[in-house]
Amino acid sequence: MNSVYVLGGATTKFGELWNVSPRDLVREVATRVLDDSGVSKDKIDAVFVGNMLSGALGNQEHLGAFFSEELGLTCSAMRVEGACASGGLAVHSGVMSILSGMYKTVLVIGVEKMTDFRPEDVAMELMGAGSDPEREAGATFPALYALIARAHMTRYGTTEEDMAEVAVKNHYHASQNPNAHFPVSITVDKVMRSSVVATPLKLLDCSPISDGAAAVILSSQIKPSQKRVSIAASVVATDTLGVAQRTDLTTLAATVRAAQKAYRDSGINPSDIDVAEVHDCFSIAEIIAMEDLGFFPKGKAAKAIRDGKTKLGGRPVVNISGGLKASGHPVGATGVKQVVEIYQQLKGIAGNRQVRGAKIGLTHNVGGSGATAVIHILKAQK
Amino acid sequence: MNSVYVLGGATTKFGELWNVSPRDLVREVATRVLDDSGVSKDKIDAVFVGNMLSGALGNQEHLGAFFSEELGLTCSAMRVEGACASGGLAVHSGVMSILSGMYKTVLVIGVEKMTDFRPEDVAMELMGAGSDPEREAGATFPALYALIARAHMTRYGTTEEDMAEVAVKNHYHASQNPNAHFPVSITVDKVMRSSVVATPLKLLDCSPISDGAAAVILSSQIKPSQKRVSIAASVVATDTLGVAQRTDLTTLAATVRAAQKAYRDSGINPSDIDVAEVHDCFSIAEIIAMEDLGFFPKGKAAKAIRDGKTKLGGRPVVNISGGLKASGHPVGATGVKQVVEIYQQLKGIAGNRQVRGAKIGLTHNVGGSGATAVIHILKAQK
Repeated sequence: MNSVYVLGGATTKFGELWNVSPRDLVREVATRVLDDSGVSKDKIDAVFVGNMLSGALGNQEHLGAFFSEELGLTCSAMRVEGACASGGLAVHSGVMSILSGMYKTVLVIGVEKMTDFRPEDVAMELMGAGSDPEREAGATFPALYALIARAHMTRYGTTEEDMAEVAVKNHYHASQNPNAHFPVSITVDKVMRSSVVATPLKLLDCSPISDGAAAVILSSQIKPSQKRVSIAASVVATDTLGVAQRTDLTTLAATVRAAQKAYRDSGINPSDIDVAEVHDCFSIAEIIAMEDLGFFPKGKAAKAIRDGKTKLGGRPVVNISGGLKASGHPVGATGVKQVVEIYQQLKGIAGNRQVRGAKIGLTHNVGGSGATAVIHILKAQK
Repeated sequence: MNSVYVLGGATTKFGELWNVSPRDLVREVATRVLDDSGVSKDKIDAVFVGNMLSGALGNQEHLGAFFSEELGLTCSAMRVEGACASGGLAVHSGVMSILSGMYKTVLVIGVEKMTDFRPEDVAMELMGAGSDPEREAGATFPALYALIARAHMTRYGTTEEDMAEVAVKNHYHASQNPNAHFPVSITVDKVMRSSVVATPLKLLDCSPISDGAAAVILSSQIKPSQKRVSIAASVVATDTLGVAQRTDLTTLAATVRAAQKAYRDSGINPSDIDVAEVHDCFSIAEIIAMEDLGFFPKGKAAKAIRDGKTKLGGRPVVNISGGLKASGHPVGATGVKQVVEIYQQLKGIAGNRQVRGAKIGLTHNVGGSGATAVIHILKAQK
C-alpha cells in the first residue's frame, strides 16, 4: 500500500477559540494545507470531513457540502463520524478513496467547535459515543476511564503517580508546540493535587474540551522533487460500545486488532516505530495504548514512561504534539491532527519538537471508550 | 468499474414504526440482507452506516460501532453523513472500499428513526442540512422547494396539477409495494384538495416523515451461478447549501454534474436506463430530476409524466418503489433503499411491481435542497 502520499498537513491553534466559527477554522486550515502541499484547489477531487458534534450541538449537519461551499469546491464531499475517532475514520476514507482509483487527490478535514456550548450539554452529547446502559447509569467518559484505570492499577500495580507522569510528559512536549491548547509544563505534584474528576482520575489526567481543525491532503500523485511521506497502513477495528460488555478492562481489543493488522499489512514492527501519536484522552489511556500497540509488554508501560523512554530523546517518542492531553482534543480534529504531526515529523519540519531521524510513525485514534480504533502507519521515503 | 457487485438487498417496512428502535430496524434488515445474499456474517469486512439524525434527535452517535456490536461484528465500521443523501454516500463509500482492495465484502446500512420525536424538533433538525441564512430566515425544506416549484412554474408553465401527477404515479407504484409507508392510490383531485404546506406545495406533494432501514451487501466476489448485478458508476457532486446562492432554481447543478460524470464513467446514456429511483422529496423535485438526469428535455418532463411515460409500463419507469413520496423517506435509509429497489428490479425479483426486462437502472439521492447529489448506475449481467 505505497501509493497513497501525504502531500501536506496543517492545523489551526487548538484551544478555547471563542471568536471563530467552524467555518473560520476550516477556511484557515484549508488555506494552510493547500499552501503547505503546493496543490491547487482545482486538483481536489473529494473532501472528507471528520466531525462528531456539529449536528447535535450546532444544528449543522451536511458538513461535506457545507465546507465545500465555503472553499468554493463542487466535488464529492461527505462527513465521516465515529465519535472521537471521526478524524481517523475520515483519513481512512481518504486513503480508501485514493486506493479505489476514483479520486487522485483528496482533502481530509477534521474539525470540532466545542466551547460555544454549555459544558453540561457537551458532556451529554459526548455520551452519544457510549452505550445505552452507560447513559442510563449516568456515566460519563471520565467515569468509564476511571473504571479502566482501577482495573489496570489492580492487575498491574499501576499508580496514580504513573498516570501523572503521562500528563507531565505530554505537557512538556506541548510546551514546544505553539498550536497546543496548553503549551505549558506541569509537575507530578501539580497533577496529584489537581481536583478529582472521577477517582482516581484528576483534572490534569484528563484531556480538555477544545476547538480546532486539522487537515491533510492525500494523493496518488507526487512531484519528483518532494520528500515523500506515504501511508503504509490504514486499519479500523471495532469493539462493544459499553465497557461492561468486555472481558478485560486493561486492554482495548479494538486497538490490539487494528494494530496487529496494521503491522501485518505494512510489514512494520512495533520496534520500527520512531514516533507515535496515541489517543491519550485520559492519562491511563496512553499507558494502555503503549501496551496494546506492542511498544512495551503488558504491565510494563508505566515504568517505561516513568523512565522517559517515550519522551523527546527516547524511542518511540509518544505524543510529541502534546497529545490529546496537552495539545487539546477537538474530537473530530484529533485523528487528523495526529496524522499531521507524524507527517511533519517524517518530513523533518517539526521545529523545536523534531524527533531526530524519524522515518516511521504511527497514529492511534479511539472512539468512545474503545469501541472504534483507527491506526495509521506512515513512512518517510527517499 | 465492473468489479463491484450487489450480492443482496433488503429493506424493512417503511412507516410510523412506533414499537421498534433503530437497533431493531438494523437487526431485522441485516438478517434479511444476509439471507438474501447467502453471505455469512464472518465474511463482512466493513460496515458503512448512512444516517443523519440519530445524534441530534436520539443522542446516539458512533453508529458504526453501535450497529457492529448489535450484529456481533468487530470489523471496520463508520457512519457516513450528508443529510438526506447519507444513504447514497454510504453506498458510495462501500463501493470505494471494495475498489480500494482494502475490503472484499461490505455491509451498507441506511437507517433513520424519526417518529419518536416532536415533529417541531424533527423539522428543526432537518434544517441542519441547510444554510445559516435559511435557518435564520426560518425557512423549512417545504418552503425552499416551494420557491423552486414557483421558479419552474414561471419559466416552464408547470402547473400544480403536473406536480400532483407525480404524487399520483408514485402512490400507484407504492400500492404494489408492501413495504411502502403509504401503499395506497390517490387521485389528482385528492392532491389538489389536500392542505397547503407551502404554496404551491400541498400535503400530498410532500414526502412523509418515516422510520425504516435498508441494506445492501457489496462485494468484489461473486458465486458463478448468480445473476450478477454490478455497480457501473458511483458519483457524488456538491453545490451551495443555500438556494439563494444559486443562479438557477429550476435545476440542481449537483445532479447535473453527478449524472454527466456517471454517464461518462459507465458509457451508459440516459436513454439506456430502464428503471430509476429518484429523489422526489417533493413532487416538483421529481420533475426537475427527470430533466437534470437527461431523461427529458428541460421543461418537457411534466408532460411526459402526465402522459404516463415514467409509470409502470412506460420507460424509464421512475420511482417504482413509490419513491420518497409514497414509499416513505427515512432520510438515512433512502439512498440505500433506492439501490435495493434497483437491485431487485435487475434481478427480476420485484414481484407485482417488476419492470419487465429491466437491465440498467439508476439511483439519484439528494441532500438538502440539492447541495449533495449521489448517482449510482447498476447493470444486470449474464
